[in-house]
Formats: sequence, C-alpha cells, structure tokens
Amino acid sequence: MILTVTLNTALDITYRVPRLRPHASHRVTEVTERPGGKGLNVARVLAALGHEATVTGFVGGGTGRALRDRLAAVDGVSDALVPVSGPTRRTVAVVDESTGDTTQLNEPGPHVSPAEWAAFQEAYAGLLGSASAVALCGSLPPGVPVGAYATLVRAARAASVPVLLDTSGEPLRRGVAARPDLVKPNAGELAELTGSHEPLQAVRDTRRRGAHAVVASLGARGLYALTPDGEWRAPAPDRLAGNPTGAGDSAVAGLLSGLLDGEDWPRRLARAVALSAATVVAPAAGEFDAGTYEKLLARVSVDRVTS
Amino acid sequence: MILTVTLNTALDITYRVPRLRPHASHRVTEVTERPGGKGLNVARVLAALGHEATVTGFVGGGTGRALRDRLAAVDGVSDALVPVSGPTRRTVAVVDESTGDTTQLNEPGPHVSPAEWAAFQEAYAGLLGSASAVALCGSLPPGVPVGAYATLVRAARAASVPVLLDTSGEPLRRGVAARPDLVKPNAGELAELTGSHEPLQAVRDTRRRGAHAVVASLGARGLYALTPDGEWRAPAPDRLAGNPTGAGDSAVAGLLSGLLDGEDWPRRLARAVALSAATVVAPAAGEFDAGTYEKLLARVSVDRVTS
Repeated sequence: MILTVTLNTALDITYRVPRLRPHASHRVTEVTERPGGKGLNVARVLAALGHEATVTGFVGGGTGRALRDRLAAVDGVSDALVPVSGPTRRTVAVVDESTGDTTQLNEPGPHVSPAEWAAFQEAYAGLLGSASAVALCGSLPPGVPVGAYATLVRAARAASVPVLLDTSGEPLRRGVAARPDLVKPNAGELAELTGSHEPLQAVRDTRRRGAHAVVASLGARGLYALTPDGEWRAPAPDRLAGNPTGAGDSAVAGLLSGLLDGEDWPRRLARAVALSAATVVAPAAGEFDAGTYEKLLARVSVDRVTS
Repeated sequence: MILTVTLNTALDITYRVPRLRPHASHRVTEVTERPGGKGLNVARVLAALGHEATVTGFVGGGTGRALRDRLAAVDGVSDALVPVSGPTRRTVAVVDESTGDTTQLNEPGPHVSPAEWAAFQEAYAGLLGSASAVALCGSLPPGVPVGAYATLVRAARAASVPVLLDTSGEPLRRGVAARPDLVKPNAGELAELTGSHEPLQAVRDTRRRGAHAVVASLGARGLYALTPDGEWRAPAPDRLAGNPTGAGDSAVAGLLSGLLDGEDWPRRLARAVALSAATVVAPAAGEFDAGTYEKLLARVSVDRVTS
C-alpha cells in the first residue's frame, strides 16, 4: 500500500452564501463537509486510480469522529489515524455565489503532546513495514516539533521506503535537509525556502539542499522536474477554468502512482499534470474528472530540458 | 422552573483573525465554542440570577453532542433537549481583530421531520406541567411548521403558564395571533410585522394583533412597553461601547426574572435594561457583567407614559 501522512487532518466545511459582505450576518444556503488535509486528498485520488492507500496522522474530538465517519465511506482508503486528546481542526471555505470566489478560514489544529508525537512515530514505523511509498503532506499542528518531517523522512529512508515531502516553511527546510526522494513545492514555497523568485534557480537550490528530485508546481506554467535522471518541463493544458483546490494533491498522487507502476519520469509527470488539470475542472473541490484525466493523459506534452 | 424553548439550537463558534480579507486564506488565531441559540442564552442569564432554568428544543449529530457536553457544564441550567436525526447547526462569528467587527455565518439547521416535531410537542406538554413561565425564542429549523410558535403559545395558555415570544417574520406574525402574554420585538421585527417604521405605532398595532403585552427593544433608545397595566419608556444608559450579541436575550431574562419575583412592570423593565447594558459591556459575547448590572439596576429610569 501507499502510506500518506497528514499530521494536521481537517474536517473541510464548505459554506455557500449568496454574497459575502464583511461585518454582515449571512444565512448559509448550503453546507458540505468532507474529510480533509492534503494527505487525505492524495489518498483519495490514489484509491480512485486503483491503488491501496492508507492514511495516518492525528485525529481527535468531535470533529475527528465526523472525519473518521466520512473517511470510512471512501473505498480503497484505510484509516490508520492516531488518536489525540485535542479536537481535529475545521477549515471553513466560504463560497460567494455572486462571484464564485472563496474565502478560507483555517483553524490551527489540536495541541499535540510529546507523548502523542512519540505514539505517532511508533505507529508510523509499524506502517512503513508494509508501505511501498510514503507521502508526507501539509502543515504541522501545534506541539509537533518543527523538525518532525525530517524525522519521518529519515525513518522512511532507513526502512528503504521512497518518501515524498509536500509541505512549506521551516518544516520543509528541515525536511529537505533529511534527503527525501522527492519534494513538490509550489512557486511560493520555493521562494520561501530559497529566497529566489526565479523558479528554475530555486529548484536547483532545493536539490542542492538535499532533495534527490524536485517537482515544482508552477500553476499555469505547469510542472518543472529536476531529477537524477534528467530535467523536464510539463506545461499545463490551456484554458483551465475551475477550482484549483486539491490540484497540488492530485499532482502528488499522480507522481506516486506513476512511481509505483514503474513509469519513467515523463509518464509520471504526464499523470501529475493531467490529474491536476482534471481536478481544477471537476465541480467538487478536491475531486477529479476521470474523463478529463484520460483525455489529457494522452495529450500532455513533457519536454526534456537540455542544458 | 422557567422553561426556555430554542427550536434551532446552535453550536456558536467564534474565530479571531488578524484581518478579514474576502477571497483570501486566513489562519484563525483563536477558536471558542459555546452552546447557543436565543433560548439557551436566556436560560444562562436566568441561572446566573438564581432561577432554575430548563432548556428544550432540538439537538442532533456531532455538533449536538458538543453542544450538550458544554451545556452540562453550565450551573443551574437543565437539559431537556429533544433528539433529532439531523445535526445541530453551527454559527460562525469571524472577529476581525483590526477593527473589532464581526462577520456572521449561520447554518440553516437540521431538517425536522413531522414525527420529530410531534415528539417535541409531547415533551413540551410534559415540561409545561412544572414550568412557572415559558420563553419561546429564535428561528425555526427547516421542516418545522411556520405556525409552530402559535401552537406552542396556545399549549402554554391552555396550561395557564405565562408565555413570552421572541422571534421574527411569519412565525412571529402567527405566534402573536395566538395571544401570548408578552412579545419582545426589536425595531426591525416590529416594522416587518406591522409595516410601520414608527415604533410606537408598531407597538400598538402588535398589541391589537393579539399580544397581551409588548416590550419593544429599540437599541440605543432603550425599551418601550405597552401592557394591560400601562405604558412605559426605559431609556438605555449612555455610552455603551461593546458587543450587542445576546443583549436582547438578557432583556428577555430580565423580564421573566422580574415576573417570577412578583415585581411590577417598572422594576421588570429596569432589570431588562440593566441586564441588556451589562451584556453589551461584558468582554465575552452573551455574558453579562454582574457589577455593571447591580450598578445600573439602581440607576435606570423608567418613565410612565400618559396619553
């Protein structure tokens, strides 16, 4: 199975309002809830592609119960979440129906004690034994050491399990130094990590800092990959109107799926680009449109960069 | 005991953000939760004044469990809520720390089935047997008939229990026609009910529609009461900076408290004005400042209107 780690899982709540007006009172016309956090999104896409996925991370309180109830209904995803005493956070996305724009409110997450963090590491070590790859995804909840991902990267490497890291800020900086097989930063994360707003330079710098391979997601410019086997560009398809929520997580799922199926880098990148685009055009945030994926997969161009 | 009815109870969530910017993503710096809905607020104030209060209404799902857990920690308030299959709604108040302003997002509430509404009426009839007064508060969840409050007013009157109604729109219109002992509309509710934006005329019209007594809360202009015993004005104290959330519910608690303690109208109105003001100045939404209440209670002027 493929293991995805989401230390700061979330119950993702979406509110639709006719028009969002700051400092006014609004009746919410529609409420939807789904289990969230980047690693859970990755696992859902992997399962839809036919892989067995297992999710771990922290879960607690009433929102944690709601998350697990909903996760149990997702085919192909196994729940190996570790209980904590604090409540799982909520994220609230407020969709303004007059413009289609979204305002996002993210709770910080439960405070994790040193004993809970130790219990997680033990569970993680056990799960690595049956994992063919692991993805470490998203932000850290309060209380988890800032070097948490570095620790988890080292444990995966010691167990010879390929490890992908997708996070930001100081946890990314420390995690990269622990030499993960792959990191997937976006333009903002690259700039924060390296101080460079020139993506290609920032990608090279990220690799020098320790990542074996770097796949940068550059929004409308598509993916840029710097790997031990070479360097590739995969432009995003034209005219993608829709909701970019979860597009990065779908790219991660595409890269892992391709790796596990023994595909070469160009085909892995093609999966990532096609899944990402098929997620943007899907009506529900974080879902992907299977028809669009199949169609794009055959058409995505991945170009080798020679320098 | 005093019975308060909140058909659309809520888990009230408050988010603090440094600055609310529509269409941006925000990290919430502080999350607080409390059991909410107007009747629950009324019960909490009554309990703080030394009365025994019992709350009923609908409760369900994970948010319902969270609400009941927190309600159990409130001294002097008994939980007689009736279970429904749908989840209790959340309300989210987003406080912009740069301005102090609040943006409110209210979920609609669970869909209540005819069988659930029938079960509630049976429970309510049982509770009336030991109630010395009843307050019917707030909006109706989906599925509850628009004439629900009229039905509950008639049941209270048949049981000879004094009944106060505090709602809005069509449920208020129908409820008033069922001849409650007291209604407590604000200026907006009065205008919606009567079509008149002249409060004194609207108060008279409301009484003609069936309410035995009307106490209108007119914001900074204070309270205006039209009763079988006479007509009074009770101006609000000057300079009230703070959060008006729950001020109307505290006024309801003051009126009921005074009624049960055998006070005359001027003293009931003084309690309502002082509690209302003490709620505005309290730091936490819906709480009242006991010191301010005691001080204002001795100073509030209630003037008889002779015409």
